[in-house]
Amino acid sequence: MGRYRLLVEYDGAPYRGWQSQAGGRTVQDAIERALLKLEECGADGGVKRLICAGRTDAGVHALGQVAHVDLDKEWRIEVLRDALNAHLKLAEEAVAILDVERVTERFSARISAQRRHYLYRILNRRAPSALDRHRVWHVIKPLDVAAMHEAAQSILGKHDFTTFRAASCQAKSAIRTLEVLDVFAAGEEVHVVASARSFLHHQVRSMVGSLVKIGRGQWPVTEMRAALDAQDRARCGPVAPAEGLYFTKVEY
Amino acid sequence: MGRYRLLVEYDGAPYRGWQSQAGGRTVQDAIERALLKLEECGADGGVKRLICAGRTDAGVHALGQVAHVDLDKEWRIEVLRDALNAHLKLAEEAVAILDVERVTERFSARISAQRRHYLYRILNRRAPSALDRHRVWHVIKPLDVAAMHEAAQSILGKHDFTTFRAASCQAKSAIRTLEVLDVFAAGEEVHVVASARSFLHHQVRSMVGSLVKIGRGQWPVTEMRAALDAQDRARCGPVAPAEGLYFTKVEY
Repeated sequence: MGRYRLLVEYDGAPYRGWQSQAGGRTVQDAIERALLKLEECGADGGVKRLICAGRTDAGVHALGQVAHVDLDKEWRIEVLRDALNAHLKLAEEAVAILDVERVTERFSARISAQRRHYLYRILNRRAPSALDRHRVWHVIKPLDVAAMHEAAQSILGKHDFTTFRAASCQAKSAIRTLEVLDVFAAGEEVHVVASARSFLHHQVRSMVGSLVKIGRGQWPVTEMRAALDAQDRARCGPVAPAEGLYFTKVEY
Repeated sequence: MGRYRLLVEYDGAPYRGWQSQAGGRTVQDAIERALLKLEECGADGGVKRLICAGRTDAGVHALGQVAHVDLDKEWRIEVLRDALNAHLKLAEEAVAILDVERVTERFSARISAQRRHYLYRILNRRAPSALDRHRVWHVIKPLDVAAMHEAAQSILGKHDFTTFRAASCQAKSAIRTLEVLDVFAAGEEVHVVASARSFLHHQVRSMVGSLVKIGRGQWPVTEMRAALDAQDRARCGPVAPAEGLYFTKVEY
């Protein structure tokens, strides 16, 4: 038996998120089904459960999700990667395995993660996107990027992020350390990059929704920090849609 | 009556190409249907025919296609753009109108075009793309980009491009002046940029398919020019798939 670490890319649009659930197409199911096909050709069979670094919500994309899985058979890592991709492609899944590594049982994709990185893409122009439908948040009104970045800097560090946390969030503590929250223009888009050891449920989308209130001039720059300090979910801006969010990288 | 110039972006994947045809979803039809909805609310009605700078094939994308149309009513250009986008979005079309300008009847999107620009995207890695399915050509074997670029430079200028022209091409002459054919690495992708006053049918995809033969080491660098000089379609490499091709810009 051996543990394998998978680097995973996916288009979130067709999925109800990462995690297996009754009556919904999920990324986890797609990969576990591909693994089952492999094991049928190999050892015992039986579903192998994946553990991931971050369970993304419905519609959220990944460029660098990480997951681990224990398999009965010893695989050459290139063979495992290519075979999984072949089965995923055959099943018309919007999921690709970018890389496979052999790891020890001390490695957990979830627990061993030291830093998680997200990108949020806002398309900031009049016309909607033809090529990036379901991959960006379309905001028509020109955003004040400098104001958004200034506001973002005001909430860096270790805080109680209750304001920017979903009501449904199950984490015991709302205290997190936000290491990076950068806002910058990228052509016709505005990008928000967020990094932390871990995030609360809907934290990135809650922060982005609030930053867009500032970028639109509906809130003063100071409201970001004031909303944080209030520790009050009612002070949060509207949660930004899932389609603009990318889970880009995990550091171990 | 007035003539309007439209700057158009589209995802080619769901369409049988630009041009209206029996029994197929096309980009031209999508925009003409949106125009018809507008005119119903305004003047006479009746389908307004669009003339475009380049009739892209099935699966080919556009970031900057240009088309013109004559409308009965005088429109404020921002209103026309936003109304067309609203109707296109409602119809779930993968088409967006980026810009509208009022032009004189001396302007023709097709005849007045001075230079056309294309981009071809090759994803050059082991794993297929999850997020860019139907938007890149996936080539697994590492490509020799320098060899491809060198070969590309050898066919610049005014030549008979019979070798790189579809058998079905209806242009009277195969002589064209290729101004730019650059090949360069862009992260995990290899990009080919092509510019000319006009191109023959399948010319860009034929040139890219041949360049990939060189990039894979299956042809020597000198074969690109030798194939051109032979003026023989049989000397062309396999035509690159439509999904990697983008019509990026037209200059007038």
